[in-house]
Amino acid sequence: MRRSQFYIPTRRDVAKQESVNAYLLTKAGYISQIAAGAYALLPLAVRSLQKIEQIIREEMNAIGGSEVVFTALQPQETWEKSGRWNDPNFRQIVYRDEEAGMTFGATHEEPMAIVVKEKVQSYRELPVVLYQFQTKFRKELRAKSGLLRGREFRMKDLYSFHATEKDHQEFYEECAKAYTRVFDRLGLTSYRVKASGGVFSKEFSDEFQVICPTGEDEVMLDHATRTGFNKEVEDSMTAEQKKTLERVKAVEVGNIFHLGTKYPDAFDFKYLAADGSRNSIWMGSYGIGITRLLGVMAELHNDEFGLKFTGSMAPFEVVLIDLTHEHTVGDELYQTLTNGGLEVLYDDRDEPAGSKLVEADLIGVPVRVVFSQKTAQEGKVEVKDRLTGEVELVAKEELLAVLRSKLSR
Amino acid sequence: MRRSQFYIPTRRDVAKQESVNAYLLTKAGYISQIAAGAYALLPLAVRSLQKIEQIIREEMNAIGGSEVVFTALQPQETWEKSGRWNDPNFRQIVYRDEEAGMTFGATHEEPMAIVVKEKVQSYRELPVVLYQFQTKFRKELRAKSGLLRGREFRMKDLYSFHATEKDHQEFYEECAKAYTRVFDRLGLTSYRVKASGGVFSKEFSDEFQVICPTGEDEVMLDHATRTGFNKEVEDSMTAEQKKTLERVKAVEVGNIFHLGTKYPDAFDFKYLAADGSRNSIWMGSYGIGITRLLGVMAELHNDEFGLKFTGSMAPFEVVLIDLTHEHTVGDELYQTLTNGGLEVLYDDRDEPAGSKLVEADLIGVPVRVVFSQKTAQEGKVEVKDRLTGEVELVAKEELLAVLRSKLSR
Repeated sequence: MRRSQFYIPTRRDVAKQESVNAYLLTKAGYISQIAAGAYALLPLAVRSLQKIEQIIREEMNAIGGSEVVFTALQPQETWEKSGRWNDPNFRQIVYRDEEAGMTFGATHEEPMAIVVKEKVQSYRELPVVLYQFQTKFRKELRAKSGLLRGREFRMKDLYSFHATEKDHQEFYEECAKAYTRVFDRLGLTSYRVKASGGVFSKEFSDEFQVICPTGEDEVMLDHATRTGFNKEVEDSMTAEQKKTLERVKAVEVGNIFHLGTKYPDAFDFKYLAADGSRNSIWMGSYGIGITRLLGVMAELHNDEFGLKFTGSMAPFEVVLIDLTHEHTVGDELYQTLTNGGLEVLYDDRDEPAGSKLVEADLIGVPVRVVFSQKTAQEGKVEVKDRLTGEVELVAKEELLAVLRSKLSR
Repeated sequence: MRRSQFYIPTRRDVAKQESVNAYLLTKAGYISQIAAGAYALLPLAVRSLQKIEQIIREEMNAIGGSEVVFTALQPQETWEKSGRWNDPNFRQIVYRDEEAGMTFGATHEEPMAIVVKEKVQSYRELPVVLYQFQTKFRKELRAKSGLLRGREFRMKDLYSFHATEKDHQEFYEECAKAYTRVFDRLGLTSYRVKASGGVFSKEFSDEFQVICPTGEDEVMLDHATRTGFNKEVEDSMTAEQKKTLERVKAVEVGNIFHLGTKYPDAFDFKYLAADGSRNSIWMGSYGIGITRLLGVMAELHNDEFGLKFTGSMAPFEVVLIDLTHEHTVGDELYQTLTNGGLEVLYDDRDEPAGSKLVEADLIGVPVRVVFSQKTAQEGKVEVKDRLTGEVELVAKEELLAVLRSKLSR
């Protein structure tokens, strides 16, 4: 992408605020606040989120998921059937147009059960695994942590339907493994943490937590096994665990729930077994906060110059800064790197060198390539690793190979 | 994609309904109705829409657009400033949570002007061109035409900001050309039609209309120049035009508006010109209905067996049907075609031949490849063109080349 054609509204006039991620992402031109807890996603954020979503898409497809997009709008009748329309737990968090009799669904158990019921009748058609990337709405009273807790946010939610509790249990464990792979690929160390089912389920749920000093949750962690307990279920720990586990602040980036047969039963969705009996269907739901992940990355990966993102989720892998005025070398290198499959932001603008370098650090692209009249004459370019700060001079012909190795591509 | 791992809930129990597209797309497992005018998008629809969006993304990037995603939530205050909160034209179509003081924006002029104002101060920073793919909400009273008019739908909306009226006019024309390219790539013949500015503008607007017998609009068309007039502005036509233009039913798939300086002015968003003067900013908005496009394709491209989609927007380009039980040839061909860059749905299920063939026709994949024990022994496969109905036997080794040429790839 040519910088001259790409909108990056970095800002100098941002006041320090309660939320580190909102401050940094606003300054770096990723987001702009529309209302408390509601942020416009600007071009850099859109690219990052598309990369995060693609990683999740690959892992959800790998466990047999099919991608759908359900409507945010959900009619009053279906929420009355499942008992959620008048449930005060949901009433206080779900936007609704009373006149139209519509909720803006923060969660999709009802329509998923209804739609799958239209097709599935026999055990031969199970399991069904559907997931979506969707914009969710929640009336948050306290929305002060930037992308960590919003009134409007992107989520991946997946719903699975199974013939038996055992089938569901097996899929649940597969999904847990897929979640760990997602967070690993994003460079985040996640912990599988035992928690309450909250408003969704009377059973325990599993949360995926990432250590973060500004997180809302308190968790007790075992680093060796990458598991732990949410403080809210401390009664579940042994005396030994209470002594040895480390208590830290964390952010929940994913969660998975056993829903039992509640929602399918509410819509009389049952299946015909091989022996002819008509049985209840087991359901689970599985979420990952997409915009929240971007917030967590900003909270964790930054320094006094700005953001420090990893290649797997940075909007670009390489920023290429041309300090000459001819753009001959720049155009040539941009072509070479782009043809080589790298995601390159090519700063082709006639701006002062200082402001180009400052911007590259601020927006957090992992590798910076700079060349001036002088280095160009020597056939070299300067390569700086944003994460380690290391700088080296590299021959032009070797640049692609050096970058590929740096980015593990 | 292996069919055994991909959810295609085709249905036999769908009653004929007012809307052709809703009937066909429901039967073919693309969509499922959640409420009047609100449809869940199932896996086939998601793939088609992603392809449609990618074509639009490429054309919007080519005219200098940067992709963003603004929030659907928009606070009451900003709509009060622009005068739309109490405007009955908008009041009746926009969902709102009165208690929370929030609208669910069907359109984004206000937040776009506000966000761009945060950064842009000088003529050197103009133009700014931002676009988004977004879910929009509209309280439609009559929502009976399936994906042609929904209460929740996907749209591409683009907003441009310019220093002068002339700059805006030039961009407007560029965008009009890009729109024609988008519809051409989707295999739709579009007409640029003069229309009223509706609730957005007192000036004329341009609509992009596609001839469709079930369309809501009546337009007068000149086929040679692919232009015309919406019936609502008939007064604009000459007597000659009234005589020679053809009057037909059509669907509006895109529209572009001159907004003048209204919205930037409402938020005191001005720029500093080279001569030091502080001037008003010219704004335009430009929409394409994404889900509506899928609806139009279904209305126009079908026969008694189901949908007939073109490769550019069909969920898959090729459906590969294995009628043997070993899957050796199937696995091999699937690998070859996928490695060759084609989008293949590989029906690897042990289902009756009839139901596999019927499904392939119903879902509208443009090319069907079938092989049985018999053709496999002869080293051949059967290739059927869904659009023309032509069938030919092709040697296995030539399959990739034959398909590429059929799909113009």
